[in-house]
Amino acid sequence: MLHSQGDIICALATPSGIGAIGIIRISGKNSLQTLSKIFSKDLTGKPSHTLHFGNISTPNGQLIDEVLVSVFHEGKSFTGEESAEISCHGSNYILQQVMNALIESGCRIAEPGEFTMRAFMNGKLDLSQAEAVADLIASESKRAHEIALNQLKGNFSNELAELRDQLIHFASLVELELDFAEEDVEFADRTELLELVTKVLQVVTRLEESFELGNAIKNGVPVAIVGAPNTGKSTLLNQLLQEDRAIVSNIAGTTRDVIEETLNIDGILFRLIDTAGIRENAEEIEALGIERSKQKIEQAKLILCMADASIPGSLEEVRQWKSDLQEKYPSKRLVVVCNKTDIHSVEIHNDEIAISAKEGVAINQLKQWLVDQITSGYDVQQETIISNVRHRDALTRTREALTQAKNGLETNITGDFVAMDIRQAMFYLGSITGDISTDDLLGNIFSKFCIGK
Amino acid sequence: MLHSQGDIICALATPSGIGAIGIIRISGKNSLQTLSKIFSKDLTGKPSHTLHFGNISTPNGQLIDEVLVSVFHEGKSFTGEESAEISCHGSNYILQQVMNALIESGCRIAEPGEFTMRAFMNGKLDLSQAEAVADLIASESKRAHEIALNQLKGNFSNELAELRDQLIHFASLVELELDFAEEDVEFADRTELLELVTKVLQVVTRLEESFELGNAIKNGVPVAIVGAPNTGKSTLLNQLLQEDRAIVSNIAGTTRDVIEETLNIDGILFRLIDTAGIRENAEEIEALGIERSKQKIEQAKLILCMADASIPGSLEEVRQWKSDLQEKYPSKRLVVVCNKTDIHSVEIHNDEIAISAKEGVAINQLKQWLVDQITSGYDVQQETIISNVRHRDALTRTREALTQAKNGLETNITGDFVAMDIRQAMFYLGSITGDISTDDLLGNIFSKFCIGK
Repeated sequence: MLHSQGDIICALATPSGIGAIGIIRISGKNSLQTLSKIFSKDLTGKPSHTLHFGNISTPNGQLIDEVLVSVFHEGKSFTGEESAEISCHGSNYILQQVMNALIESGCRIAEPGEFTMRAFMNGKLDLSQAEAVADLIASESKRAHEIALNQLKGNFSNELAELRDQLIHFASLVELELDFAEEDVEFADRTELLELVTKVLQVVTRLEESFELGNAIKNGVPVAIVGAPNTGKSTLLNQLLQEDRAIVSNIAGTTRDVIEETLNIDGILFRLIDTAGIRENAEEIEALGIERSKQKIEQAKLILCMADASIPGSLEEVRQWKSDLQEKYPSKRLVVVCNKTDIHSVEIHNDEIAISAKEGVAINQLKQWLVDQITSGYDVQQETIISNVRHRDALTRTREALTQAKNGLETNITGDFVAMDIRQAMFYLGSITGDISTDDLLGNIFSKFCIGK
Repeated sequence: MLHSQGDIICALATPSGIGAIGIIRISGKNSLQTLSKIFSKDLTGKPSHTLHFGNISTPNGQLIDEVLVSVFHEGKSFTGEESAEISCHGSNYILQQVMNALIESGCRIAEPGEFTMRAFMNGKLDLSQAEAVADLIASESKRAHEIALNQLKGNFSNELAELRDQLIHFASLVELELDFAEEDVEFADRTELLELVTKVLQVVTRLEESFELGNAIKNGVPVAIVGAPNTGKSTLLNQLLQEDRAIVSNIAGTTRDVIEETLNIDGILFRLIDTAGIRENAEEIEALGIERSKQKIEQAKLILCMADASIPGSLEEVRQWKSDLQEKYPSKRLVVVCNKTDIHSVEIHNDEIAISAKEGVAINQLKQWLVDQITSGYDVQQETIISNVRHRDALTRTREALTQAKNGLETNITGDFVAMDIRQAMFYLGSITGDISTDDLLGNIFSKFCIGK
């Protein structure tokens, strides 16, 4: 992938399908000259950021389409290279013909993400910003969009740069100490060093931990609704979705298949899973034994344990379930939701929710619970939240190196070991923005992009 | 639709789905001023055909995306109005947000075809050119693309303008005669008039007749393959498609469902229909009685009647079918295709084709037959071919009016009747390019467009 950066690359940049307009993007040194071979005007002398109407033809002169070409000069384009965008009539046939004409004129089809990779190689974006482009395109909800845009704007990169500055400061103090080690002079106060590394460690840990939230926001939060048949799971699902997607009846076991629906609350996407009911009356956790429901529970991050206020003993039984499940899956968040409280009133605990799915009572309270589990402790709009697993891994390694440095300081290990740990932490931090990168890493990142980006 | 031409309209112009880029188009008086409300730069002073990088935000200032805006001034855009194109990151979420922001700023969502209709209303395109835009977008093959592009370029419009000029000349001669009717002076030689109307009539008739070809090219030519079970229909289909779409076996009746495949020969799209075999051995045409096969035969324009050289009597039987079918459907083109001639040699007539579907013998001859049936008598690249049913209907009415004028001249009818017929012919010709149009007609034409065009 990295071998042919001198090529002129071209790709369809709009989704395939019939539309009013289809855009083909081309980028590379002399791309305007190449495009001019098949365009009715000479584009080489045109100023950057101008549009030109004309005809695109095959190299042997057969008219393909009337198009509008955008001209971008080197240093002023998305990729940083001389480039152009051809706005054609949105017919697949025409777009294919134009692509063919470009290839015959010496361009080659871009690999996925190659435009963005060139932007990175030319210093127009750092690596985490480049990754944000892909996330931005894939974003389906307000929060996912905010996180990606925030990252694209460079806020995350700036935060990392600040951390690296602090580490450099730290390293210089340690090195200073090393220089004068013989003289037994302690320029760098170990207490001061410890404070600094602790502070950086806190920020890194916070960023690392934000991944759970970021990932949930990016991919949607799986929520399982479990409970005995006829508890009103489907009714609740419909109430949440405010439309009739699941078939609701009062015959036990109506919900045969696991239904998955997405629900957008406060800009966060929740994937709701309505599990099939439990036919057995067994009181144990194994009562949840329908295989598919079990799987869904395992995938879920949040679990609503539904009790039926109209059935004596149901609430107590569900409380037992909940505590058994919580023990089995300590990282999941569970809540007891008692339904049908319009028919029978019940006394619930502080951390439980009494609803009526049918009448729509306390549904907002339930929604708030869902949102709180995800965002609690975070100011989603202000704080940097990471959503990329590569960044999380780099942060984890940074944290490990810093922890080692911290332990070293606390156990009075010699300065050169501490310096090595710090250098390692800086390496991992740098890999996030691409200040430190390898070909493998780049190939891996950009191959996940769509072609044309 | 025609009531709100003063509005600023906006629409997604690229296909929906995830892509690198999504384009939103806006058009109307002061559209740049409106867009500037939510864009980080003031676009009102910018020259036409320039591109501007900046941020799009909601009206209350929340950042949506980094975008590139193309600026077009009144008189210099596709619609003829002041307009802009916003090139966003291709996420559905972002595109929705930008559309919302535009609507909140005073734009409204465009109706299908409204951009092109405005181009027509502002004299940027005539009606037949506007229709060509929709055809161009929908074109799937080389020939369909050529016809649409030819029409967009105005070649058809020019030909019509020429015909109208001749009719005006004709009308002026008739009117002159009318003016001097009292004096019994014959300025316009009736023989000359007759020659002129005959000449125009010929051109109109040729254009009218080209519709059959144009329509076939635009929508694909339906071709039915019929024959007894095990004749090798599926093998032929595969041979033509050069891939294994239909399941081939030597068990009679393998092809249960009617399979439709498209085949592009010489830039013309053929829709191949493999009909279920005929289980009965009856010799009559009713042997083709499987209902679905019958329907397909009725839809087909070309029919390949397949005989099996390895079965004695098959060829004679199929010849009889062919002549019976030809009698029943005089407008369809049929050919006897004798298969398995690699196993058994047969003597065929001049108008028949001997093939081996299995060995790929004479498949090109069969393809040539298919193409010839469609293009015979036409130079597809040079002649104007119409493909729009509205144009055909207008040409039919023009021809009827001209025929009446011709009859009038031949039967020495008075000049005013002839003049009326000519006026009618001119009216119908004018309706094609929109020189004569009604709101109903326009609404009908543009509603067939996709939104954003």
